Amino acid sequence: MVILIGERINGMFKDIREAIINRDPEPVKKHAILQTQNGARYLDINTGPTVAAEDQPAVMEWLVKVAQEASPLPCCIDSTNPDAIEAGLRVHRGKAMINSTTADQWKMDIYFPMAAKYGAAIIGLAMNEKGVPKDAHDRLALAMELVANADAHGIPLDELYIDPLVLPVNVGQDHGPEVLEVIRQVKLLATPAPRTVVGLSNISQRCPNRPLINRTFLAMAMACGLDAAIADVEDSELVDVAATANIILNKEIYCDSYLKTFRQR
Amino acid sequence: MVILIGERINGMFKDIREAIINRDPEPVKKHAILQTQNGARYLDINTGPTVAAEDQPAVMEWLVKVAQEASPLPCCIDSTNPDAIEAGLRVHRGKAMINSTTADQWKMDIYFPMAAKYGAAIIGLAMNEKGVPKDAHDRLALAMELVANADAHGIPLDELYIDPLVLPVNVGQDHGPEVLEVIRQVKLLATPAPRTVVGLSNISQRCPNRPLINRTFLAMAMACGLDAAIADVEDSELVDVAATANIILNKEIYCDSYLKTFRQR
Repeated sequence: MVILIGERINGMFKDIREAIINRDPEPVKKHAILQTQNGARYLDINTGPTVAAEDQPAVMEWLVKVAQEASPLPCCIDSTNPDAIEAGLRVHRGKAMINSTTADQWKMDIYFPMAAKYGAAIIGLAMNEKGVPKDAHDRLALAMELVANADAHGIPLDELYIDPLVLPVNVGQDHGPEVLEVIRQVKLLATPAPRTVVGLSNISQRCPNRPLINRTFLAMAMACGLDAAIADVEDSELVDVAATANIILNKEIYCDSYLKTFRQR
Repeated sequence: MVILIGERINGMFKDIREAIINRDPEPVKKHAILQTQNGARYLDINTGPTVAAEDQPAVMEWLVKVAQEASPLPCCIDSTNPDAIEAGLRVHRGKAMINSTTADQWKMDIYFPMAAKYGAAIIGLAMNEKGVPKDAHDRLALAMELVANADAHGIPLDELYIDPLVLPVNVGQDHGPEVLEVIRQVKLLATPAPRTVVGLSNISQRCPNRPLINRTFLAMAMACGLDAAIADVEDSELVDVAATANIILNKEIYCDSYLKTFRQR
């Protein structure tokens, strides 16, 4: 069963940026409800790039509270600022997901203990300070670092989501097959197998036909075993593809109304 | 580069059935042209189930001639009647494809020599008189029979298209993952690797949302290495998905107008 993580509560979008500035809960609630109704299992929460670092913890706390007032879903707390992540975790209801650590040792030493402390799942990016690896092999080596460090901190490995890092197809086209290969092979790294997640919308940055590229890539990644995607869950055609791929993979019993039941799980 | 084989010139469709009865070339030409413009690389030609066996060779000959008057494409000559297949091959211009043999010895003994004689590519179904196998392993065993027999007749193995046999998702849901596994593993059977093909529309027989299921399955199968699909090439959304998956797999250089260039190859 693929887990859709709604990407929309993010300060990079104008309506959320303005909601943050005005501390107006309505746009946040609106997207929390819409994404919940459309099949999201988590709400990604990101303050966006314009909030000053010292304000990020308070803004994250506010966003998490507002989103969870409007929706029963857990949040995927998304920041490069550890203080903002922890502020979100502190007020979060249920089992959160941390988004994210890289395979840099100093980051793993911050985020894996934090995941253990709060009982949160965590996304590990298959990259480090040297950047995004060129091929599947080097990404898998970093994934193994993430697995070993998560395990050392007692994180159940099926609560570690490896993100192979998707690049836009118009600038990093050769990464596409490598990312699919990583999704397949991550399952071989440990028992229980780590999970996989992608930031789906990255595949189509600055391309025409973005929704088409996103939903095609989602089906392809699911065929390779993808477990979760941070995605535009308000795009109904995308959710339809997730539900359909789910049925084709025999993850849920077919019924004629499967598109509806996928959203109502 | 996925090869789309247009399914529309088939007597199971009412307009083609009537065209055959009246020997009216126009509907055949119309679909030959439409499918060619929309990105087909082959035209599947099938007399349909209502033509009497003794008439099938003449009807096949007529259909192939009419289709090739309207389109430069080669044909995928589709029948369970060897005489009809050979009648089509005899008048065909260019490199045809035979659709199909099963893994039954008596059929392979007819069709592989025919493919060799006419220099045609050939589809081999991973089934025999016992029916469609339940899992990937048994399908692959039959695929290996097809590979060995094709090789014995001097058929280049990359001109053998293994069809793992797609069942409708509403009645054979457990076959979906098996079919995807066969598509992946067929490549390991020989060097050069045999190719793979599916009868795409079978996945959605008697389901609602047929185009959605078809195009989602196409993207998934392409992620597993699918080489060709007999499909509804007049469905533009399906062709868009084929073009997009092609780009994501890095099979053709990305350009912003890739949907158009895919159709114009």
